[in-house]
Amino acid sequence: MATRIFPTAQDAEAAFYEALERCDLDGMMAVWAEDEDILCVHPTGGRLTGQDQVRQSWARMFAAGPRARLQVSQQVAIGGMMLAVHSVFENFSLEGAAPGDARPAPIVATNVYLRTAAGWRMIVHHASPAPGQSPPPATREAPPKMLH
Amino acid sequence: MATRIFPTAQDAEAAFYEALERCDLDGMMAVWAEDEDILCVHPTGGRLTGQDQVRQSWARMFAAGPRARLQVSQQVAIGGMMLAVHSVFENFSLEGAAPGDARPAPIVATNVYLRTAAGWRMIVHHASPAPGQSPPPATREAPPKMLH
Repeated sequence: MATRIFPTAQDAEAAFYEALERCDLDGMMAVWAEDEDILCVHPTGGRLTGQDQVRQSWARMFAAGPRARLQVSQQVAIGGMMLAVHSVFENFSLEGAAPGDARPAPIVATNVYLRTAAGWRMIVHHASPAPGQSPPPATREAPPKMLH
Repeated sequence: MATRIFPTAQDAEAAFYEALERCDLDGMMAVWAEDEDILCVHPTGGRLTGQDQVRQSWARMFAAGPRARLQVSQQVAIGGMMLAVHSVFENFSLEGAAPGDARPAPIVATNVYLRTAAGWRMIVHHASPAPGQSPPPATREAPPKMLH
């Protein structure tokens, strides 16, 4: 598969969540830096480090195939020359759920991207359940905060 | 209280964990950037934003006073010109616990620091329980990865 180049951290994040919703393992791993220092914390899980652990964890999660729609909301973005940090809520809606069904609690995620020779790549994904978090308001994202 | 200046992100992190162990609210808030975009996720909690929410959350946590020793381990540090990202385990030992008592599960934390006009300050703290994480090995920290 040709290496994908993400010109901005936002592009990398869009690809990350597209791959997550589609359970697309190759698409997911194309977002991560080819670096043994990458770190991934799944909700209620420990810290995974390096390409092998991170790939295996997504492979397990994706094994059953796509079963939920994903809406990402309330992004706060802090962007530097070499690093960018995004905080978002991941709102999953199970396929086949009726409109009145309880939705899973949102997930709060901290995503860190690094500008590499091959464009922007993810180096940290830290996700945890955010019980009691109010549902996302109508889309109104804050503009990214640029440091340069 | 005089404003403290942290010349490096490591200095800010040391002060953060010193304040956390001591339940020192002023010391804690001296580490955070004076910015309404600061973000804090406590274990099993939602996302708090801004000085007021962050201060109130620490005030509640610190109300009972210090009751645990804290050891920070397995730091992975990624440092840029303006932003630094640290991942650590927070290992709490309850005061009065016998050596054989079960220890609370470690907490995995992603900490983001910003270089401001007043030195390095914390802008993001995302902490979540890491059940099943193996206990920290004897101290052997990886050197920080510098991007500049």
